[in-house]
Amino acid sequence: MINKNISKVKVIPLGGLGEIGKNITAIEYDNEIIVIDCGLAFPDAEMYGVDLVIPNITYLLNNREKVKGFFLTHGHEDHIGALPYVLKQLNVAVYGTKLTLSLVKSKLEEHKILSDCTLSEVKQGEEVKTEKFRVEFIRTCHSIADACALAIHTPEGVIVHTGDFKIDYTPIDGKVINLHRFAKLGTEKVLLLMADSTNAERSGYTVSEKIIGENLTRIFERSKGRVIVATFASNINRIQQIINASLSYGRKVAFSGRSMEKISAIAIELGYMQLPEDQLISVEDINKYPSERITIITTGSQGEPMSALSRIASSNHKNITITKGDLVIISASPIPGNRKLISRLIDELFSKGAEVIYDAKEEIHVSGHACQEELKLMHTLIKPKFFMPVHGEYRHLKQHKLLAENLGMDAKNIFILETGQVLELSRNAARKSGVVTSGSIMVDGIGIGDVGNVVLRDRRHLSQDGILTVVVTIDKASFSILSGPDIVTRGFIFVRESGDLISEATEVVKAELDKCMERKITEWFVIKSNIKNSLGQFLYSKTRRNPIILPIIMEI
Amino acid sequence: MINKNISKVKVIPLGGLGEIGKNITAIEYDNEIIVIDCGLAFPDAEMYGVDLVIPNITYLLNNREKVKGFFLTHGHEDHIGALPYVLKQLNVAVYGTKLTLSLVKSKLEEHKILSDCTLSEVKQGEEVKTEKFRVEFIRTCHSIADACALAIHTPEGVIVHTGDFKIDYTPIDGKVINLHRFAKLGTEKVLLLMADSTNAERSGYTVSEKIIGENLTRIFERSKGRVIVATFASNINRIQQIINASLSYGRKVAFSGRSMEKISAIAIELGYMQLPEDQLISVEDINKYPSERITIITTGSQGEPMSALSRIASSNHKNITITKGDLVIISASPIPGNRKLISRLIDELFSKGAEVIYDAKEEIHVSGHACQEELKLMHTLIKPKFFMPVHGEYRHLKQHKLLAENLGMDAKNIFILETGQVLELSRNAARKSGVVTSGSIMVDGIGIGDVGNVVLRDRRHLSQDGILTVVVTIDKASFSILSGPDIVTRGFIFVRESGDLISEATEVVKAELDKCMERKITEWFVIKSNIKNSLGQFLYSKTRRNPIILPIIMEI
Repeated sequence: MINKNISKVKVIPLGGLGEIGKNITAIEYDNEIIVIDCGLAFPDAEMYGVDLVIPNITYLLNNREKVKGFFLTHGHEDHIGALPYVLKQLNVAVYGTKLTLSLVKSKLEEHKILSDCTLSEVKQGEEVKTEKFRVEFIRTCHSIADACALAIHTPEGVIVHTGDFKIDYTPIDGKVINLHRFAKLGTEKVLLLMADSTNAERSGYTVSEKIIGENLTRIFERSKGRVIVATFASNINRIQQIINASLSYGRKVAFSGRSMEKISAIAIELGYMQLPEDQLISVEDINKYPSERITIITTGSQGEPMSALSRIASSNHKNITITKGDLVIISASPIPGNRKLISRLIDELFSKGAEVIYDAKEEIHVSGHACQEELKLMHTLIKPKFFMPVHGEYRHLKQHKLLAENLGMDAKNIFILETGQVLELSRNAARKSGVVTSGSIMVDGIGIGDVGNVVLRDRRHLSQDGILTVVVTIDKASFSILSGPDIVTRGFIFVRESGDLISEATEVVKAELDKCMERKITEWFVIKSNIKNSLGQFLYSKTRRNPIILPIIMEI
Repeated sequence: MINKNISKVKVIPLGGLGEIGKNITAIEYDNEIIVIDCGLAFPDAEMYGVDLVIPNITYLLNNREKVKGFFLTHGHEDHIGALPYVLKQLNVAVYGTKLTLSLVKSKLEEHKILSDCTLSEVKQGEEVKTEKFRVEFIRTCHSIADACALAIHTPEGVIVHTGDFKIDYTPIDGKVINLHRFAKLGTEKVLLLMADSTNAERSGYTVSEKIIGENLTRIFERSKGRVIVATFASNINRIQQIINASLSYGRKVAFSGRSMEKISAIAIELGYMQLPEDQLISVEDINKYPSERITIITTGSQGEPMSALSRIASSNHKNITITKGDLVIISASPIPGNRKLISRLIDELFSKGAEVIYDAKEEIHVSGHACQEELKLMHTLIKPKFFMPVHGEYRHLKQHKLLAENLGMDAKNIFILETGQVLELSRNAARKSGVVTSGSIMVDGIGIGDVGNVVLRDRRHLSQDGILTVVVTIDKASFSILSGPDIVTRGFIFVRESGDLISEATEVVKAELDKCMERKITEWFVIKSNIKNSLGQFLYSKTRRNPIILPIIMEI
């Protein structure tokens, strides 16, 4: 290559492509790296016991002197949730808008590292300069307040990263997405657009948040008893609308659920949410007021088993018991994988006598992401030279690519990357160039990365067929069995049913051991492996199950 | 009560209420019981390792001399799947239409009990008489051919059970639901209607199967490469439409997937499916034909990990490898709980170069169940005195009740039952009267009912945090440790990361043991419990995890 010494801009997604969540992208030029977002992902069903998943940031750690900071588009978990873990390893400045940083702050406090970290507030419309980059925060709309797109001015051209966005002409806080700025950038040439693909499969427009407010108000109008609304704690505008509907029908508002209480307190304190102090009551005081004067806003819209709403439904909530006449509104749509939990929750609420309004029945939730018509507007305004769909599983990225092609973009200027792939850009060209270390790190309890594929495979295996431990004490001098074999099982078979099976299994092991003793086999691993084989075959033939068999030989 | 000696009709649902699947209902009068359907349910995500769930039929076993037979509405798993297990305990006659019985037959063959069983074919429109009952099979439409409603003529009046149904005026096989018969029954007075509630939440009508055929044909028209269509093996009319579209564009048809091959062979043999012999090819021969001459019809529309389509997507299918130009059509909608699996499947197919058409994009699947307008028609024709919504979770039953009330039915004549509850009916009255034994029996491998709540709780626990086995050999005479303590873990922590932790844990156990030895504690359960406590606290403080701790003491 001729121009090998000329610097290029590298775009390196370290998460968020081909998956939902864990959004993090590095932009590199020369001796500088800036990082957009630092999110977590929630574990898949087969990540047994894993609490959350964070990105592998080896690439950033290997280039730690280059990293100038994290630039946050908004305060959702999939964009900020990995920060407490990552900042412990890579303590650089964090830039974001007020609400976003408040949410980060509360996380860092929990992890007891706030005082070591540098959080720098940026207002929508402002920019942050490093030596090589200028990062401009542009106001967008999303299902959390204070969301931004980023225009990253690099020596080779402007990169626009939309963050999560939708186009809402009538947002609740009146802060319309700054289409003018996107239009202006479009006239000045944009090198690369990275745009939200979450809803790229959906035709049409995402409905305005305002419509939801109108629908909620109609529901409140006809409601005579308590109203309990479950929604996402971070959806401050939604909560504001629930508050507004409540106040206009003379209801006081109580919050229930840890994150709901926390985030609403932050939002009220910072002025993102309006609720007169005398209209806010503690959930402990709800019984002091008549039912028709109470609204409870709660977490648990996804049916999460330990959430406030699940505890309410299963009569395990300290302060709230469902009675006939209660109305429960689930103002959220099911995240894939949660539908069964939510169904069960709804059934439980119904059977306790509540009326339940949920997505199948009325329009009480709206997405925070742009559908196809909005994406077309964004592409048309920005007119990028190159395009890279982001935020979504492969099929979302693919649909977004087709959308751009249908708008006339040349397919070869569109890049679907995988996490860890590098897109190298100069003023006139873009190409995929190599791969960096990336991936998922599983967090279980305090442990970060100490649960890997072997542990997960074992957990999966244990969950399917259980475990059978075989213990025997052997006198290694005389090749004789001193004690055992004893068999103990967990998760394999119901003990009352298993009496004969376990005593037969013990005989199988004993026979195998006798053979080994006779042949004076001294390699324990051979004995163990023989036990595993004979016992495994025996159990499979009797039960068609393959429990983990754990032979333990104690020698004296 | 004055009339206590007068016989009543008892309707006893033993499954299928408040749940999806496991449909089975007993109808009892005097010394006779007839049973409608005998289905299985698929396990919930938290039923770790369980293969399937069958109903508890203790009530039938306790009244075995009364039971006159099983009357099957159609051949879906949730209506016939438990028969092989149940007939082993209660071998009575099984009545159903030809296709339904063929599917039952194939199951009984697999279980090697066919020769012991009595299957009696009934044609749509015919009836079966017992001493007390007359059971009439009435043609309906559903997503499997040969579906029936049952009109059960009892001494107290007629009970109509719709089975699963929808109203399709243009079904593929031309066999329109017998609305005239329902109308006639309505004029003659129906005591009780039991009707399918699966789609009671959905307004409007279920689209005709024919529309799907037209859409599929349009897709075939524009397809240049191979077409692979995944759908339910039992949806014979859908498969017929895929065959028709294939033949009209000069494609030969191959079937892939065990149940697809099995059921299509049965359907062709019985004349339920038309496919000229020279147009059917083996999946092993597909490469002998050009791509544009091939259609593959396969199982796996729910993303089931071992299904044909999943094996195709993950390049593990012996005969089919995805190449650019392949079109995959997923002609099914996701069953709740399967959405993530299906998403992953679609992503994998896309990334291998296939085009994928799935429910989010085009109308290529339609439900087999009646929506609200169809339910209204059925209620209006049948005009029952009493109504009991069946087939559905609680909220579906509840919506169906509301629908009946909106049609003018008196709420007190509508009965939402739970599985095991008894509805007692006479010519003029109906009331809930008591509860019989019912419930779920889990089948895991060969074992029926040997996995209970304790085993499931352990499997769940094992899947979250793994297990830690502590073994020690003790000389009970001298209160001394002869060998160990040894700690072995599975699914707890990645071994390479755990070195220090496990040796520290061993020290904790040793200290605890020393204390016990010193105090000459001879009750092993006390020692075990002390080890569990100290070790559990230690591990939680270090990892925030709670593995199952299994102390095993070997004594010599």
